[in-house]
Amino acid sequence: MSVLRIGLVGLGTVGATVAGRLLDGAVRGAELTAVSARDRNRDRGIDFSAQHFADNPLDLVNDDAVDVVVELAGGADGMALDLVSAALAAGKPVVTANKALLASHADALSALSAHHNVPLAYEAAVAGGIPVIKALREGLAGNDVARIGGILNGTCNYILTQMAAHGASFDDALADAQDKGFAEADPTLDVSGADAAQKLSLLAALAFGLRPDTDVMPVTGIAHLTALDIELAAQFDCVVRLVAQAQKQADGVYAEVTPMLVKNGDALAHVVNETNAVAIHAAPLGDLFLQGPGAGGGATASAVLADIADLAQGFGRPAFARPSGEMSESVSQVPPAREWYLRLQLADKPGSMATSTQILAENGVSIEEVVQRSRNEDDSYLPAVFITHHTAHAPLSQALAALRQQTQICKDVVTLPVYGAGFGTGE
Amino acid sequence: MSVLRIGLVGLGTVGATVAGRLLDGAVRGAELTAVSARDRNRDRGIDFSAQHFADNPLDLVNDDAVDVVVELAGGADGMALDLVSAALAAGKPVVTANKALLASHADALSALSAHHNVPLAYEAAVAGGIPVIKALREGLAGNDVARIGGILNGTCNYILTQMAAHGASFDDALADAQDKGFAEADPTLDVSGADAAQKLSLLAALAFGLRPDTDVMPVTGIAHLTALDIELAAQFDCVVRLVAQAQKQADGVYAEVTPMLVKNGDALAHVVNETNAVAIHAAPLGDLFLQGPGAGGGATASAVLADIADLAQGFGRPAFARPSGEMSESVSQVPPAREWYLRLQLADKPGSMATSTQILAENGVSIEEVVQRSRNEDDSYLPAVFITHHTAHAPLSQALAALRQQTQICKDVVTLPVYGAGFGTGE
Repeated sequence: MSVLRIGLVGLGTVGATVAGRLLDGAVRGAELTAVSARDRNRDRGIDFSAQHFADNPLDLVNDDAVDVVVELAGGADGMALDLVSAALAAGKPVVTANKALLASHADALSALSAHHNVPLAYEAAVAGGIPVIKALREGLAGNDVARIGGILNGTCNYILTQMAAHGASFDDALADAQDKGFAEADPTLDVSGADAAQKLSLLAALAFGLRPDTDVMPVTGIAHLTALDIELAAQFDCVVRLVAQAQKQADGVYAEVTPMLVKNGDALAHVVNETNAVAIHAAPLGDLFLQGPGAGGGATASAVLADIADLAQGFGRPAFARPSGEMSESVSQVPPAREWYLRLQLADKPGSMATSTQILAENGVSIEEVVQRSRNEDDSYLPAVFITHHTAHAPLSQALAALRQQTQICKDVVTLPVYGAGFGTGE
Repeated sequence: MSVLRIGLVGLGTVGATVAGRLLDGAVRGAELTAVSARDRNRDRGIDFSAQHFADNPLDLVNDDAVDVVVELAGGADGMALDLVSAALAAGKPVVTANKALLASHADALSALSAHHNVPLAYEAAVAGGIPVIKALREGLAGNDVARIGGILNGTCNYILTQMAAHGASFDDALADAQDKGFAEADPTLDVSGADAAQKLSLLAALAFGLRPDTDVMPVTGIAHLTALDIELAAQFDCVVRLVAQAQKQADGVYAEVTPMLVKNGDALAHVVNETNAVAIHAAPLGDLFLQGPGAGGGATASAVLADIADLAQGFGRPAFARPSGEMSESVSQVPPAREWYLRLQLADKPGSMATSTQILAENGVSIEEVVQRSRNEDDSYLPAVFITHHTAHAPLSQALAALRQQTQICKDVVTLPVYGAGFGTGE
């Protein structure tokens, strides 16, 4: 077998790690022949004197000494889009870690990949070092996936872990995450849930054949979460996690990103700090759980190297494991029935609790557990917290609307779904 | 691409599930054309009228309508060995779930696979439905693995979970496992650790290039574990798990199967009942953790179907991801330094504790934590339990030998290593 010649665009932390490993011979049958980066002269601790350096990344597409283009420059459009499109059109396989690019241009890029019969590999775009794309596309090839999802954003998980450990506010935990390098100066993409939604859209495409489109997905971030709700969750033996999850329903696939209560008996509850995790329920397999580093130079490089190794072995598949025209799964419009955490801020006067529970009951929302907080001297509103039984979306919405009309007794209603899947405690 | 024609030997629970999924078209590009089983006429709820039935499994090797042989008959020798050998020699790829066969005949079979350039696939042989072979061979292709291991035997994990949950003895928990179908009538292969050792030997071959040989591996089972030690482990915030683990050391690879104390902060501690799990530490990746069903028809079938799907896509690798001649890694003779759980049964008289701790100190074994149990009226010996700091094997052995000579004060010494790797609690 001839050696696969790699052209690498982007020499940041990930790119430099990938380059270093390739130069060390870590991937049998692959060789780094050309690189491109914004700053040619920065010292990366690597000797690139034997590699062709291209000032214009697009030159790698036409370089006869490049068989595969590895795109680690980033950006949903612009140069990255031009580069990946040109490489596929020229019949050169592409490896990318760029989830924003894939989520934004899934149709065009998967069509190009299919039309030219050229692999487009993106293991690094979802859950960093966890080989979840490979597990889903190949390891579960003979299965029907019913549900896939988990913790796909390390920044949010770090913030939520710290809020729980120290009773910190969101703002304080975010500042800490920024100090430690786990959050960007502008954290919007992460804390809004948008980053997790992009990754989930790629998983749902592979698992179900749902065309990637984060616009059709309900996405709720974590910036509104309070230390109080995280503390109250603990009283129900739960933690709060930002869960990105897609599941097959009768009318299509329901995909959503939202903070959820996760019971401590579930493996997802033990995923702490910046770690990522994916839980998959499939038949005939059952439940599979994968946990690992979701970001960082080493983890992302590991996934990029795996894609390169596959290509060097002659392995390659269409972008979403099926021809582009087969992305025909529908989006479900029906949120699944779930247990819910409800926190009502109730006026500290007779009848508040009775009226509230009556409104829930009248709308068909039945209660599994309740906690009422003891009174602080200066509070005229006290939190009452309910965990409901499984409740469909319509009755819950009606009950919430009715509660919000009771402005005399109920100041505020906070809702969080309860995560309901995965590994139990065995009790 | 032409359709891959499958000949399937063995129609038990796994074989019937694989056959059913193939007949349902679950694997693109693969078709079931021939089957063989001991009892042709048993009702398996599947219509095999369109498949050729071979009374002699070996006939499938010479059947021109069979491209791939799937061996699900079992057994370390005999027919399974003849079938797999003949298929590889005839240039037909083999898919098998047979860990005993692979562990016993790794040299011969991987040599055959390499010599005839024919894939030998065995995802189902290790950790059932967890796609760990694929993760290790392909997902971590650009990594150096430092350590791999985990919970590879569901029977033992079920027994240990039940012992902890109910304070049950080993014998009672085993009987319960047998009742529920999680243990065989003769449980020796499982509870002795031999089954986990076979699986570990395959993981170590893939991860390190260590020739599979369970004879060179220290293997300790779980039959000697007492409810007392499991209860005492809980006092140190630990559970007991049968851990199968291989790690790279200066002089080679140290592979071992032994019960260990696992701290509750580690993901491995939350793996309960018959579930399996594998933890991998590699560079540049970091820590990866995979959890799922280790046995059962659906899980095993899922892994077999994944191997078939790979072959249908034209993917295939040598048995241990490297030519047979490169299995040149050595076996390390040096057990790694570890923390240890030591339980001494000390005579209930003055000086017992002082003498014991002095012996530990004199031999260089330093103590991190100690628990001494309160006295029951009729006990003349009381348990004293120590967790040591990291201790190399030589000083520990010397200390244990010296303690065992103190027959006047110390009746019994129980030792268990403490598992030291993986995901922390983030605290």
